[in-house]
Amino acid sequence: MKSVYSPRHHGQSGQYELVSGAIVPAFEKPERAEFIRARLAEVALGPVLPPETHSLDIARKVHDAAYLSFLETAYDQWLARGNTGPALPFIWPRPGLRSDVPPADIEGLLGHYSFDGGAPFVAGTWDAVKSSHDVALTGAALLARDRAAFALCRPPGHHAGRAFAGGYCFINNAAVAAQALRDAGHARVAVLDVDYHHGNGTQEIFYDQRDVLVVNIHADPRHEFPYFLGHADERGAGDGVGANLNLPLPLGTEWPAWHAALDSACTAVADFGPTALVISLGTDTFIGDPISQFRLTSAHFPQIGARIAALGLPTLFVMEGGYAVAEIGVNAVGVLEGFDAAI
Amino acid sequence: MKSVYSPRHHGQSGQYELVSGAIVPAFEKPERAEFIRARLAEVALGPVLPPETHSLDIARKVHDAAYLSFLETAYDQWLARGNTGPALPFIWPRPGLRSDVPPADIEGLLGHYSFDGGAPFVAGTWDAVKSSHDVALTGAALLARDRAAFALCRPPGHHAGRAFAGGYCFINNAAVAAQALRDAGHARVAVLDVDYHHGNGTQEIFYDQRDVLVVNIHADPRHEFPYFLGHADERGAGDGVGANLNLPLPLGTEWPAWHAALDSACTAVADFGPTALVISLGTDTFIGDPISQFRLTSAHFPQIGARIAALGLPTLFVMEGGYAVAEIGVNAVGVLEGFDAAI
Repeated sequence: MKSVYSPRHHGQSGQYELVSGAIVPAFEKPERAEFIRARLAEVALGPVLPPETHSLDIARKVHDAAYLSFLETAYDQWLARGNTGPALPFIWPRPGLRSDVPPADIEGLLGHYSFDGGAPFVAGTWDAVKSSHDVALTGAALLARDRAAFALCRPPGHHAGRAFAGGYCFINNAAVAAQALRDAGHARVAVLDVDYHHGNGTQEIFYDQRDVLVVNIHADPRHEFPYFLGHADERGAGDGVGANLNLPLPLGTEWPAWHAALDSACTAVADFGPTALVISLGTDTFIGDPISQFRLTSAHFPQIGARIAALGLPTLFVMEGGYAVAEIGVNAVGVLEGFDAAI
Repeated sequence: MKSVYSPRHHGQSGQYELVSGAIVPAFEKPERAEFIRARLAEVALGPVLPPETHSLDIARKVHDAAYLSFLETAYDQWLARGNTGPALPFIWPRPGLRSDVPPADIEGLLGHYSFDGGAPFVAGTWDAVKSSHDVALTGAALLARDRAAFALCRPPGHHAGRAFAGGYCFINNAAVAAQALRDAGHARVAVLDVDYHHGNGTQEIFYDQRDVLVVNIHADPRHEFPYFLGHADERGAGDGVGANLNLPLPLGTEWPAWHAALDSACTAVADFGPTALVISLGTDTFIGDPISQFRLTSAHFPQIGARIAALGLPTLFVMEGGYAVAEIGVNAVGVLEGFDAAI
């Protein structure tokens, strides 16, 4: 399997996030991608390609144009206001407030376009975000000839919605890739998100569409980030009713229950009848993950890849979360190895 | 004029807030109330009474019962989760996420019930919040016999909505007082908010009611906190259409323009025909305020009191913001002195 990687992800470094009442160094850090790249080389999975530069034309189909402009200019606006350090929002348009009038001030705009204190902007953020988007699109293009590809995206994307950042995510790389596959002629595309956290952004983007199925296996949002989406009763809206499936699992879930959910998810994907599949690949289901509460071990990740391979679909793996840095390479590449071994 | 004060406000101390990408000591600190109390004594404005203890029955008419229970238990839940230090939220249910399923985890609940990183809980928060509520209700009760009273509330309240905290506010003291006046037989009550920041909570609470007029003079929310409410086109909803008036002013506004807005506000109050008036009294319109951008001087505050006195209404002053600590006493009490001198 070919992989796509860009060192420009390093632009998103030195950032902080708000968690448990404190500003702390972000768990989402550059070492994550480097451990994966090292593991790709170690097991010689296949060629590691640089991304081709893409326009934002496809991104504009899944994100608001004004939001993308905001992402590109946010840090400059932050500096122009006299602020220093990472840009974090501090107020949000929850229900009871208005979201139809974008503030003119960057402090307000950051909240207007986000849902948490976990999408910090530093000087290199936009370059890294754009690069991650390019990695996803380059990976999607590989499916024209290859059975599978791996987009080593960083920063991740699945928490980013049509017009909001959050949870380390800015552009939704998986959604952009799914849209690219639609544009390339795949009439039906499925996105299967196996990250520990619900992919609220991907769900929100495609919620009223019937051409893109979104399936999530994740920690019950009543107890876990992102808290405000990912319940089992969310089945899609309008034309999209039936094209969204959430399989929330309790904190502490071990492999048997997780694997059963994966089976259900794969059945739903097969029933949908897609001709291409995007996997939002998070490895924070790992027992050693510092911010997560599932109990998968490294031996389980190749089995995930094998089960996905059994679907028989052109498959793009898009990297999302996973914060046990030393093990992220073994676990993420383990999924890919399991896939390759099964085809 | 009698004042009501409780030392229990000191429970809300040692707190931090999220602002401009950093956790910093909160601008809303105990010294604020102490400078005002000292000034009350210095000018011998009148007796300073302790609050009577009140039940939450009236508060439950302007806040959701579940929200009030959350306020009372939040810090214990924070400690029970193993967290330490001030409790701050880090994720919020902005549009695109759901707000109909309260999280079971305190980290999510904090966001469910707030709109910013500026309503921190410490061990003494609830005691101070409950005390501030008692101060407001005791002040409202004084209007049964007195022309005016001053509720030296701390923490402030006007940013707190029916089911959300934010901007240093938890229980909306002014809204509770207005409701108490309604319950005491005043058929129409007006709330005039002269704080620098829009009183988004008070507006939200009474937005669809025609028995309580809410008028705000404040910094344009396109450029200033709370950013997501306080525009001139917000005139009330349903039965409340016409019973909400916003007079946003540009950053840098000086006395002539501010005073003209006060005149317009007082005309609207008079036209409404209330039999009681609640003033949300912020002094952060002061030129020396560290987080605000209007340019009133200490000489202007007595003139505010005089203009309000000219309405001829039973009037409860409820303390809100003002962060230029050394001058907050002179400015807040200056309003009260100006009122007393004019009646």
